[in-house]
Amino acid sequence: MNLIHNFAHILEKIKSDKPLVHHITNYVTVNDCANAVLAIGGAPVMADDPREVEEMVSIASSLVLNTGTLNNRTIESFILAGKKANTLDIPVILDPVGVGATTLRTETVKRIIDEVKLTVLRGNMSEIMNINGTKAITRGVDSTDDTMAGGREVAQSLSKRLGCVVAITGATDIVSDGTKVYYIQHGHEMLARVTGTGCMTTSLIGLCCGTKEIPIYGAMLGIVVMGAAGERAYEENVDEGVGSYRVKLMDAIGNFSVQQINEGEKIYEG
Amino acid sequence: MNLIHNFAHILEKIKSDKPLVHHITNYVTVNDCANAVLAIGGAPVMADDPREVEEMVSIASSLVLNTGTLNNRTIESFILAGKKANTLDIPVILDPVGVGATTLRTETVKRIIDEVKLTVLRGNMSEIMNINGTKAITRGVDSTDDTMAGGREVAQSLSKRLGCVVAITGATDIVSDGTKVYYIQHGHEMLARVTGTGCMTTSLIGLCCGTKEIPIYGAMLGIVVMGAAGERAYEENVDEGVGSYRVKLMDAIGNFSVQQINEGEKIYEG
Amino acid sequence: MNLIHNFAHILEKIKSDKPLVHHITNYVTVNDCANAVLAIGGAPVMADDPREVEEMVSIASSLVLNTGTLNNRTIESFILAGKKANTLDIPVILDPVGVGATTLRTETVKRIIDEVKLTVLRGNMSEIMNINGTKAITRGVDSTDDTMAGGREVAQSLSKRLGCVVAITGATDIVSDGTKVYYIQHGHEMLARVTGTGCMTTSLIGLCCGTKEIPIYGAMLGIVVMGAAGERAYEENVDEGVGSYRVKLMDAIGNFSVQQINEGEKIYEG
Repeated sequence: MNLIHNFAHILEKIKSDKPLVHHITNYVTVNDCANAVLAIGGAPVMADDPREVEEMVSIASSLVLNTGTLNNRTIESFILAGKKANTLDIPVILDPVGVGATTLRTETVKRIIDEVKLTVLRGNMSEIMNINGTKAITRGVDSTDDTMAGGREVAQSLSKRLGCVVAITGATDIVSDGTKVYYIQHGHEMLARVTGTGCMTTSLIGLCCGTKEIPIYGAMLGIVVMGAAGERAYEENVDEGVGSYRVKLMDAIGNFSVQQINEGEKIYEG
Repeated sequence: MNLIHNFAHILEKIKSDKPLVHHITNYVTVNDCANAVLAIGGAPVMADDPREVEEMVSIASSLVLNTGTLNNRTIESFILAGKKANTLDIPVILDPVGVGATTLRTETVKRIIDEVKLTVLRGNMSEIMNINGTKAITRGVDSTDDTMAGGREVAQSLSKRLGCVVAITGATDIVSDGTKVYYIQHGHEMLARVTGTGCMTTSLIGLCCGTKEIPIYGAMLGIVVMGAAGERAYEENVDEGVGSYRVKLMDAIGNFSVQQINEGEKIYEG
Repeated sequence: MNLIHNFAHILEKIKSDKPLVHHITNYVTVNDCANAVLAIGGAPVMADDPREVEEMVSIASSLVLNTGTLNNRTIESFILAGKKANTLDIPVILDPVGVGATTLRTETVKRIIDEVKLTVLRGNMSEIMNINGTKAITRGVDSTDDTMAGGREVAQSLSKRLGCVVAITGATDIVSDGTKVYYIQHGHEMLARVTGTGCMTTSLIGLCCGTKEIPIYGAMLGIVVMGAAGERAYEENVDEGVGSYRVKLMDAIGNFSVQQINEGEKIYEG
């Protein structure tokens, strides 16, 4: 399968090039994001002061913007770093955490989308629906509304409108570059019982896209690594609990290999 | 025992309603707090920008204020979110981390107490003594001064004065609503060797109070969950070390059930 | 061996005095730093608002400054707390994370060095080279450039110039007080696959120096604890993965004893 070949190629480039992923992110899950990027061979860097983000992103391979705990300082930095990344053709990945929950989040995400050209936008169904202008209610930063109903259309049309890959993650993940649409059914319900699995997925997408390979494959691989690791962690953990699951999850992220997903039976184009 | 029945009822409501707990908290233990809330079935959200906290708290079931790493931004947000929560009858839980250690902490906690009606105040003995105006020295954010001498009187009188539940945690926890006073002897000394166990207790109280059941039972249950989990984690860990203990602790928080505390032998009214 | 005796003495003082280590640090690895300090018997406190850092450092045994995610607030606090510590003879440890990667970091570290008398400066080779004015390229916050070529001279001359202990950590760690130079060969390559091991080393140095024993021994012991723990964690973990390794690492930090390094065979003066 061609997809598996692409994934293997991206993983090899991560190991050899060790892409530096500049994060402007929240203080809740930032440590998990750093460890996830390190685990599969990348190099994370976090810097959010407006006076340094343009310089930092200039030496990075990709930029991850995450609105989890946004404030004046990070909002200004989102824009400065995003624009700088655009001028240098550095991929920009946006995780619009909690968009729709507050006006500040909605307006900040809108501003980022207006002023920065994104490479990949990843969110849960309610976040993506909100950005798309589809009526949806965001409750906090998590969403269980992962129905596929309408997901295909939203991913594809939003992708076309923004000119970027759109990834909607949930029980089934939907990824589109505006033309193709892929569904990914890796994952485990335990992933929702640990904070940061969404943020880590975005960071892994940032790492994969930092190889400068085709963005939709980078986005898919980031999602596949987290999903497959979530499955493996459950097999290794079973009934211990969420603390142990989290540890096994990080083990599994670091130990991921394409062999684990065989011929990609849980990934299909539709 | 009626207490056990109340605890079971709160736990059921957590599972069914998945209360959203809005935190304005420190960046040291925030990830642990989010995971603790998720572990037993709640939904954590962290937001600290003054421009969004009123909106965020409006969709939350409870509000946790923690002064661990306070600054201009969070102090303003404490007040705005706290007042908004009051107008909407959303429970407010305060963890006055390090009050007494610096003037900024002391004045901020005083300001919160003056301007926001609390539902539960939880601290260690030196923090609560400081708020009560009893002479006590706070050394950093931890306290080993968990003597019960005077604790009963302080909890009860402060509770009456502030019109909220006061919980003093230590080797023996003391909880009062101004009328009743309960003692809880769950816990393990290893809990003091891991950062964030106090903050997590407060977040669990926030979650329990998010069910809108009687606050003193919510406060007690949050403390009981952490204490019983601390005991269970020790049984599962024994001699491995503090890293493993921390993992087992999160397992035990997620696996807590009222059966674990039997008839409540370690809880007594006094 | 005299060194081992010094280490044992410092560890005993940590257990008996429980030094309070005030951190002004980044939000990425702060939780790990707090847990590392707690693990071996110290008390961590994090406070970064300019209005409280002078008071907080006044009750502390040592001060750790870490530039990992610096901003306006923390930069001002670095200087205020550092100067206050100097007037009170409280040891100041600097971890110049990412110096050289951006102008803001370089200028901030320069300003700290100009205005605050350091007790210990700990960084990786590229960071120390940058501070020394030796041509080196910092890429993000990590460095694999741990060659010993030139390290001895840089450590020794920079130590003399700044009047503080300089520690360069890498595959071989180099520590100098300007006169003596020590090499430490504890550690394991897995340490580089986990975020925060450098920051934790600095916090451990802060804790050891908080005993007010001779700084070079405090600096060495902090490095030795992390290195020996890294070895032990690998023995206990082997093939599980980075998540499990991280847990075992914290166990090993907490379980460290001088017996573990025998007669100090991996430490030599040169």
